[in-house]
Amino acid sequence: MTIKEKIYELLEQEITPEVELELRELIKPYKEGSIGVCQINPIVGDIEYNARKIVKYISHATNIGLDVVVFPELSLMGYPIEDTIDRHPIIVEENIKWLSEIAKITKKTTALVGFVEFNPQKEGKKYYNSVAVMSEGKIQNIVRKLLLPTYSEFNDYRYFEPSKQVSKCENINGLKYGISICEDCWNNSEFFNGSILYHTNPIEELSKENPDVFINCSASPTRAKKEQLKHNMLSFIAKKYSTPFVYVNQVGAIDNISFDGSSRVFDENGNLLARAKSFEEQFLIVNPRKGLGKIYPLAKGLEKTLTEAKAYTLEYEPDLERTYKTIIQGIRDYFRKTGFERAVLGLSGGLDSSVCAVLLADALGSKNVFGISMPSKITSDESKNDAKILAQNLGINFAQIPIKDMVTTTTNCLDELFKTVETKWNGRYKESFTSDNIQARSRAMFLWGVSNEFGKCLPIATSDKSELYMGYATINGDMSGGFAPIADVPKTKLFALAKWLNENRSVKNAIPETIILKKPGAELAIDPKTGKALIAEDALMPYEFLDEIIWRIENKKESYNDMLDSEFLYERNNSVTGKQKIEWLNKFYRRMSFALYKWSILPPSVIVDSRSINKCDYRQPITSSHINYKGLSEEAIEQKVREFLNN
Amino acid sequence: MTIKEKIYELLEQEITPEVELELRELIKPYKEGSIGVCQINPIVGDIEYNARKIVKYISHATNIGLDVVVFPELSLMGYPIEDTIDRHPIIVEENIKWLSEIAKITKKTTALVGFVEFNPQKEGKKYYNSVAVMSEGKIQNIVRKLLLPTYSEFNDYRYFEPSKQVSKCENINGLKYGISICEDCWNNSEFFNGSILYHTNPIEELSKENPDVFINCSASPTRAKKEQLKHNMLSFIAKKYSTPFVYVNQVGAIDNISFDGSSRVFDENGNLLARAKSFEEQFLIVNPRKGLGKIYPLAKGLEKTLTEAKAYTLEYEPDLERTYKTIIQGIRDYFRKTGFERAVLGLSGGLDSSVCAVLLADALGSKNVFGISMPSKITSDESKNDAKILAQNLGINFAQIPIKDMVTTTTNCLDELFKTVETKWNGRYKESFTSDNIQARSRAMFLWGVSNEFGKCLPIATSDKSELYMGYATINGDMSGGFAPIADVPKTKLFALAKWLNENRSVKNAIPETIILKKPGAELAIDPKTGKALIAEDALMPYEFLDEIIWRIENKKESYNDMLDSEFLYERNNSVTGKQKIEWLNKFYRRMSFALYKWSILPPSVIVDSRSINKCDYRQPITSSHINYKGLSEEAIEQKVREFLNN
Repeated sequence: MTIKEKIYELLEQEITPEVELELRELIKPYKEGSIGVCQINPIVGDIEYNARKIVKYISHATNIGLDVVVFPELSLMGYPIEDTIDRHPIIVEENIKWLSEIAKITKKTTALVGFVEFNPQKEGKKYYNSVAVMSEGKIQNIVRKLLLPTYSEFNDYRYFEPSKQVSKCENINGLKYGISICEDCWNNSEFFNGSILYHTNPIEELSKENPDVFINCSASPTRAKKEQLKHNMLSFIAKKYSTPFVYVNQVGAIDNISFDGSSRVFDENGNLLARAKSFEEQFLIVNPRKGLGKIYPLAKGLEKTLTEAKAYTLEYEPDLERTYKTIIQGIRDYFRKTGFERAVLGLSGGLDSSVCAVLLADALGSKNVFGISMPSKITSDESKNDAKILAQNLGINFAQIPIKDMVTTTTNCLDELFKTVETKWNGRYKESFTSDNIQARSRAMFLWGVSNEFGKCLPIATSDKSELYMGYATINGDMSGGFAPIADVPKTKLFALAKWLNENRSVKNAIPETIILKKPGAELAIDPKTGKALIAEDALMPYEFLDEIIWRIENKKESYNDMLDSEFLYERNNSVTGKQKIEWLNKFYRRMSFALYKWSILPPSVIVDSRSINKCDYRQPITSSHINYKGLSEEAIEQKVREFLNN
Repeated sequence: MTIKEKIYELLEQEITPEVELELRELIKPYKEGSIGVCQINPIVGDIEYNARKIVKYISHATNIGLDVVVFPELSLMGYPIEDTIDRHPIIVEENIKWLSEIAKITKKTTALVGFVEFNPQKEGKKYYNSVAVMSEGKIQNIVRKLLLPTYSEFNDYRYFEPSKQVSKCENINGLKYGISICEDCWNNSEFFNGSILYHTNPIEELSKENPDVFINCSASPTRAKKEQLKHNMLSFIAKKYSTPFVYVNQVGAIDNISFDGSSRVFDENGNLLARAKSFEEQFLIVNPRKGLGKIYPLAKGLEKTLTEAKAYTLEYEPDLERTYKTIIQGIRDYFRKTGFERAVLGLSGGLDSSVCAVLLADALGSKNVFGISMPSKITSDESKNDAKILAQNLGINFAQIPIKDMVTTTTNCLDELFKTVETKWNGRYKESFTSDNIQARSRAMFLWGVSNEFGKCLPIATSDKSELYMGYATINGDMSGGFAPIADVPKTKLFALAKWLNENRSVKNAIPETIILKKPGAELAIDPKTGKALIAEDALMPYEFLDEIIWRIENKKESYNDMLDSEFLYERNNSVTGKQKIEWLNKFYRRMSFALYKWSILPPSVIVDSRSINKCDYRQPITSSHINYKGLSEEAIEQKVREFLNN
């Protein structure tokens, strides 16, 4: 066993004083420029909780004798803290107090700890997003973030003042470290072909001092295709400046955002030298100038795509393991950090609830999950049976309770009420979805009942992304819950994920094949044409087509007309008339406009895709439902302006 | 009648070609420097709708022969358009096409129209927030916004690039106009005693060219106490630079945000010369250099407070008319702009639902409101009676339907389910709020049923701000609905508002006095001590105390310890022991932490207060529920750090 292997074997163990001593010996040849990478999972705003971890790792690093120990962005506070620091400035005062006490325990090992700093000036925002450079019992210096991401899930500019000046490099035990914070390293014009958001490049500025190593403290969430982009970009920077790059990322989920960790180190040629685990807290020792590092595997598919081009595709295979881990971490951390332990969900025997059940069982432990089958008169025997088999396969708790009585009682009461309302109001729908919704809402009533009655239990919303786009989800019904695990997973990807789960979990084929094979449908209504339960695709459009629309809008920012002109993958394999395509596109935009409200009240979910409709990621006014997504020709507009002028 | 009076009388009429001709004559003495102020109510993203208004007013201004005609910020697109322009760039292309067609119809009158401009550079955000200066058939110039508000309800920096350079003054018919956009005028260091957000002051820059008039195109929402601040600030600027100031504001509500209009003009001495109506679309003609203007009244109380100091108080009286109009506009525009017309709400005979009913009747017309009394066995006869009388007084539709059958059926089903769950899970609550919630959720089921069954109808969530802070609202129950009218009104203000409504509406005393006199309580549970329905204050704390905590946190950013040290107004009039105060404060913070989830799924509401918990205004991670709001002493922290070090 080499020294390196021995070091990483020891790091897998609990770091006792004996292990520290052993490591202290082992790293001696690597001491100059040695760095402890602390990929921690903070609880946002729980400074004591975070401080405990920080103190622990500083202590390890000090006892082992590392030169530097590095934590992620805002590690003492947790990222993102959002508007909390504006309304409750006390927690900023607290993080300052904790920081100065932590500084006191530092010795020769320099610790880089992210914190919220008060802006000493009256002008500008109240706070800086900063990293304290601490050693010998003192805060030696402070590095401030310059580039403040304010898009998608990021809102840095809401509460942070951007630093105007790049900090000088830090001299630590004879080496120069160029320290930056997250977004500060994402603005290389050459890498992004000139399309950059900011007008300064902090890394370029730091490079002028010829640092020996770059260090970047980050809190960078996982999103589809981002792994590859990040890898390429960091590698590019290391190579461009011939300087090793140490990138320390936060891990763990905070509400809707899942951070993957996967902290990494590139050598001065841009080669990956070390990478921490994904979706796990880890303490890793590296030395980028002396070749000390270990590369932990990413998801299988991702390793493959790292070498591919940056193009977006609908091919899900390389992303399924990451999707799975992202959601698992999202569920687990939301429950743990809010103090919940158990989940209750409806098991319909359909794809959405089945996949949710698997994810919950894996995230919370099967004994902490209760699946409840709540059949109505429309529910088929097959569905009931599938739900039961699924529960058995997963080892989760299971109950079956028919909703017939509730639906009947509610329907009767409502019929009576409708008769009264009808005497005053016109516009009663003849064939409405009212009764469909009664079923969905009765089920949610049961789930919330269980959540209210049993401690630490949250009900689960099982809506998927395709159906949320179409508003094909019932308010106070299937889209109601304490958490929505698959709200950012489109239906076609859910099918792929279900197959992947069946193949890759230790218990194979937990999801009965019949669930994966049958056409999705909520079993809320009977199709008058067939006499069978209505199939969702008949009410909407083929899911392959629907999901491709979503993908084109989100990732390619295509418009209605762009899509009309593009050939869909679906069109290659199926004959679709121009009229049919227009009908589907029209239906999509019409339904999407009216779904905006539902997006606004969706429970916390976990963002998985490169773009989402999660309200922490994307905000569109509900009153914008009259947007003309098709646009008008210049001639038509000219004509209309003339009409307006004459009226 | 003076010329001025005649002008404003004509402007109250429909502006026919004859009226235009008459005005053309009348304004002759005021022509040089005359300005048409177009305070329009746009639909965000509905460019055709907005363009129609813009063309109409440009046409009027041109035919009347005004020098300039001015529209609010982003008037062609509507403000705020939010992330929509990122995901659907087509609407930006559309607004450009419309703008260039509108430019073609301009003649001698210069039109200032707000629009979203593409950033021609690859670097930076994709768009500018701009104003087009158009005349003689062309876009003559473009003014770009420099200061991008990104706090509270504002997110400008998410999608706009800040302009780096102040535009030159515009020469229009011999006069120099210094044009700016909204926030650009909110950064005067002297006025704000050095506490400013940005490092440049565009107005100061513009002043160096000695403009004859300042013009500011705004979209500035109404919030408590803002009217006074805005008045003082604009007056200050006009006086400081000895330059008249024309401030044109958007009117109308967009989702949660209500813009009050009240566009205004100050003369070069800082005196108010003109002010447009509040909460109404208006076309006003002014000439700040020749004393042409009319001051429409604000709310009564606000006129009074304009002269008072800027201190925050809990005194609601001056703010009730504004509160009323803000909510009315919020409801009306949300319904109109999303295509809904009718509302259904539960009438409990309590304060919240009663005030909501009045507001809905006034906003939508009483025939468009259905109040439904849904008594349970706990509901008192008095409450049932009050609900009915209220409906009669308002002339709204009314139905009564007992929820007994539904509650019984649901309770029976749930009891059965709980027995099964109990065999697997411990932690069943002995005396739970489960059954309280069944009542609230059954009612919501009825309301959503009516909404599903009858066209263009939304159910209403009646939760108030005090109870939302305490999480004292039922998910899928009273806090569920398509819109939440009073979610930003604390309970004590609701009492004041109820009295105000009874005194100031044309139909006096619509709300039965018994409703205002009785102690609030949801009538969901029986208090075992009294045998009567549980009173909310017993479960929470006195509303006066609760609302003062909220006010101190929101407006004064006080901490737990600050409040412990402050004397509450409530304490002056009531004897409160130190122990009692601590108990209430502890309860407040504990409940607030667990209410964060509920805030995240609150339906669209209308922001009324200077600060709110509306999710478009304030975002706090739900997983931050472990924040230690009390803080720790330095000694305690030092002690803990030492402990962490030794473990």
